[in-house]
Amino acid sequence: MDEFRLIERFFRRDSKSSEVVVGIGDDGAVVKSGINEQTVLVTDTLVAGVHFPERTAPQDLGYKLLAVNLSDLAAMGATPNWFLLNLVMPDADESWLQGFSTGLFSLAEEYSVALIGGDTARGPLCVSATVGGHVRSGTALRRNGAQVGDQLWISGTLGDAAIGLDLLGGVLGATGEDMDYLVGRLNRPKPRIELGLSLGAVATSGIDISDGLLADLGHILKESGALGAIVDVSCLPLSPQAIGACGESLAREKALTGGDDYEICFTANPAQRSQIEQLRHNCNVKLTCIGSIRTLAGIGLTGADNLDLTGIKPGYRHDWL
Amino acid sequence: MDEFRLIERFFRRDSKSSEVVVGIGDDGAVVKSGINEQTVLVTDTLVAGVHFPERTAPQDLGYKLLAVNLSDLAAMGATPNWFLLNLVMPDADESWLQGFSTGLFSLAEEYSVALIGGDTARGPLCVSATVGGHVRSGTALRRNGAQVGDQLWISGTLGDAAIGLDLLGGVLGATGEDMDYLVGRLNRPKPRIELGLSLGAVATSGIDISDGLLADLGHILKESGALGAIVDVSCLPLSPQAIGACGESLAREKALTGGDDYEICFTANPAQRSQIEQLRHNCNVKLTCIGSIRTLAGIGLTGADNLDLTGIKPGYRHDWL
Repeated sequence: MDEFRLIERFFRRDSKSSEVVVGIGDDGAVVKSGINEQTVLVTDTLVAGVHFPERTAPQDLGYKLLAVNLSDLAAMGATPNWFLLNLVMPDADESWLQGFSTGLFSLAEEYSVALIGGDTARGPLCVSATVGGHVRSGTALRRNGAQVGDQLWISGTLGDAAIGLDLLGGVLGATGEDMDYLVGRLNRPKPRIELGLSLGAVATSGIDISDGLLADLGHILKESGALGAIVDVSCLPLSPQAIGACGESLAREKALTGGDDYEICFTANPAQRSQIEQLRHNCNVKLTCIGSIRTLAGIGLTGADNLDLTGIKPGYRHDWL
Repeated sequence: MDEFRLIERFFRRDSKSSEVVVGIGDDGAVVKSGINEQTVLVTDTLVAGVHFPERTAPQDLGYKLLAVNLSDLAAMGATPNWFLLNLVMPDADESWLQGFSTGLFSLAEEYSVALIGGDTARGPLCVSATVGGHVRSGTALRRNGAQVGDQLWISGTLGDAAIGLDLLGGVLGATGEDMDYLVGRLNRPKPRIELGLSLGAVATSGIDISDGLLADLGHILKESGALGAIVDVSCLPLSPQAIGACGESLAREKALTGGDDYEICFTANPAQRSQIEQLRHNCNVKLTCIGSIRTLAGIGLTGADNLDLTGIKPGYRHDWL
């Protein structure tokens, strides 16, 4: 049973609430608030030893907890406003708390997101944040709007964080500078808030890539009516540091399946191409067209002649049984 | 360092956001939404072995997680609307999940609160919920409004849950029926939502009692400008089951300091007494006047001639160092 089946089976109930615009099943939920605005709500939990190595610096953990939540808001096209923090920790180590708080607020202040409440408890290290943002009514970017013929786009580069994790684990090696870059991509992902805010005008669907491109693209396809996609693997955006650390072939595999990218995957009508080119400059982010949406279900890969894709699994985090 | 100093030191920052009406430091936060309404946000985490015994039935845990959050909303005088769930568990045991889900939704459906999203992760058992509700603008019940001369009121009975926990631990004994009642008060606290909704018109301040009366009353006094209170210990509302299980003297001590009551402590001008008597009937809840607010800081106890109060600690959960 994966996370999605678990949620379907035990936690999805038909809501009778007229307040709820979008419930379970997207990057965030949407509820009514006022006439012209809606509130978008996202939450993510990071568990020591599962989502981050136990020895992760508290500064990085504080930053990353908020970043992964802001990334979900970005994928909904929302402006972040406030957040709540749930902090479970084995003891109140002052230097750890100082570091965590510093990392957390460095990002909170960058986006003017106010910490408005939370809870602290003693227990095995585990941190959650819940972030609220807003969109103009009806403008939240959903997973379910992809159309056949849409182009498929990716922000930034993929696979860096997964390679960074392998570097920390000693599975791969790299020069000091490349290592800093790749581990930085793991620990300090940049939420694509500005991009998300601009996508409402051009994109038909969007999702943040947290579990790997194939897994998260799969959610867009499923929610958009069991569509399919063709992805040109030779177009996948890779950083020179990723290629330097593990070679192009493995880097492409990491780009397809590695977790923790926190880039945005979105679909748009080909007629929007010039607007999207413009967004690259306005939002100062690399945007790459890697394929298109088609009727035939499933994800087809092209440009992968030199890759060994046997044994590739689209996602790796959510297998429960 | 207790939880409150920890929060003050590491997590309270002046918010520049004009959206935030009430930030850190009350039962819930309040943010703007629409013209006439405000959104109230609360969150609570329950950790296995800390907030509940490891062998707690999943039905009870699901119910209690939502109940303790709804209790915070009740203390803010808010109507609950939706919630998010963060579920960290060691594995996906289907029978556990079925029980947890059943308990959770039994209460969610009673109050028409919709589950709109969340997160699941593998790790040591730890559950959080974040609940959103609403109040008419400016009507949230705060901790900081108590006035000298106000009467001090308590809903329901106190100490039952703490005695229930001692029964489960074998520290105390009771008849089967009394044990069921007291353990039920521990595992299935009733959130005082209807009472909270009615208190806006009569109360000057309110808080839910989760850490023990003395500790939580202390928050009202501190937030209301370093006021004090006199509590008549002989007036503390006790259940016959509590007295039966441990005798009146220990029951009164548990009523002062035991955790997990989830009753509402509120203050009101004596002129409101008849309105409050009326609330007893309208909300079908016992309401007891146990003292009053005074200028002299600290909490004075009267009617405690036969009690040994040496060694009493006002709260027990939040000592970190």
